Amino acid sequence: MSGALTVVGLGPGDPRYLTSDADDALRGAEAVYGYKAYLDRVPIHSMQDHYPSDNREEGARAAAAIEHAVRGANVAVVSGGDPGVFAMAAAVCEAIDRGPDAWRKLDVAFVPGITAMLAVSAKIGAPLGHDFCALSLSDNLKPWALIERRLDAAASAGFVIALYNPVSRARPWQFGEAMARLRRHLPPSTPVVFGRAVGRAEETVSVVTLEDAESSPADMATLVIVGSRETRVIARSGRPPLVYTPRAAAEVSA
Amino acid sequence: MSGALTVVGLGPGDPRYLTSDADDALRGAEAVYGYKAYLDRVPIHSMQDHYPSDNREEGARAAAAIEHAVRGANVAVVSGGDPGVFAMAAAVCEAIDRGPDAWRKLDVAFVPGITAMLAVSAKIGAPLGHDFCALSLSDNLKPWALIERRLDAAASAGFVIALYNPVSRARPWQFGEAMARLRRHLPPSTPVVFGRAVGRAEETVSVVTLEDAESSPADMATLVIVGSRETRVIARSGRPPLVYTPRAAAEVSA
Repeated sequence: MSGALTVVGLGPGDPRYLTSDADDALRGAEAVYGYKAYLDRVPIHSMQDHYPSDNREEGARAAAAIEHAVRGANVAVVSGGDPGVFAMAAAVCEAIDRGPDAWRKLDVAFVPGITAMLAVSAKIGAPLGHDFCALSLSDNLKPWALIERRLDAAASAGFVIALYNPVSRARPWQFGEAMARLRRHLPPSTPVVFGRAVGRAEETVSVVTLEDAESSPADMATLVIVGSRETRVIARSGRPPLVYTPRAAAEVSA
Repeated sequence: MSGALTVVGLGPGDPRYLTSDADDALRGAEAVYGYKAYLDRVPIHSMQDHYPSDNREEGARAAAAIEHAVRGANVAVVSGGDPGVFAMAAAVCEAIDRGPDAWRKLDVAFVPGITAMLAVSAKIGAPLGHDFCALSLSDNLKPWALIERRLDAAASAGFVIALYNPVSRARPWQFGEAMARLRRHLPPSTPVVFGRAVGRAEETVSVVTLEDAESSPADMATLVIVGSRETRVIARSGRPPLVYTPRAAAEVSA
């Protein structure tokens, strides 16, 4: 008897963003593991059990799902967005890397999904239309000094920056610090896009300037895109603005 | 009479990666514009016309699609992958920004898709599991010196790097130069993932080291992911290796 583990990206929330590959993987699973807010989005199919866990328990969840699959079941682990971007795919790989040899023999697959920065970008135009970085602002798993170094490197080299996990209750000051750091490299007028709960009923998308960014409300459901010097805003009467970064770029001044 | 323009991401190729939102947008369009290789993936629905164009004609294609929609039609423009990542969404925004005022009144929407780096990542594990950059190696629209500067910034700050458009017939030497540049910052053993035509019948995925990367075959259908110092390879007997970047990172040495 040989089980299998599939790590499935749910996209940003609304089922219309689900790929048919992800839908098939969820229907075929005997057991589904995930953070409980994500599991709530997955309908329970016949003969299927759901195993919710808390947000911070990614390592334990990965290990439990692998164990379950190794015992012979067809198991799915769900992630919001894409499982490979600040989500469960790395947690599953870490568990396999550290786990017993038997875990390396398991049939493991990953099903991609629409990650938050792509969903937010699509709501507002094409802010990621040129070279860009994706950076988690959480300093739970890396030192703040490293985050600052990466903000410096990305902004000074002209990358647009997508910020995941900008704020949480346990990390109240980091977002403001990050915005201040970016103002060392970028003009106060640089466009900053806030996308909150994109793809869900309570979705909001707004555009501010870097100067005003830290006073905008952000939380763990928010994805922030900080433009480069090239990013432009197209005002439209009676419609929301479009924000985009042109495909062409000139040399960035030092 | 008022038309609409929707820029639709097809994902990496296989229809199983298409979201239902993208499928709906394609079914509802009266006219579909796109690079002919992407248009070939879209079934022609009833009462629908297809307008194929060449790879290099993004600006002209965007303008033609906008004009068509402004005349009152429901028009779709297709992109491979995600339209917001080195694709048609920025070309459409550029055209609107430069075009007549009437174009700003058009109803424009963007439907995200699975971009190549997410598809390649999912095939091999979680190489993008920590902070990463997406960088086009094409110097058609930006100077090579800027690309080198961005490679330096990204690699030295510890970002994983996803390289789009690594090689074309008109750009034979750039990929080798980029790999040589990255070896200034990263050990020769750094894992490098080549994903070619992922999501299509002829799909190949391979893992080499940075030392050997430039002799690996790459073309415009290839997406290359260069790991960071933290990226790890899990060897598995009888199965392909898993490549992942751990969620946690220590300070990068200067």
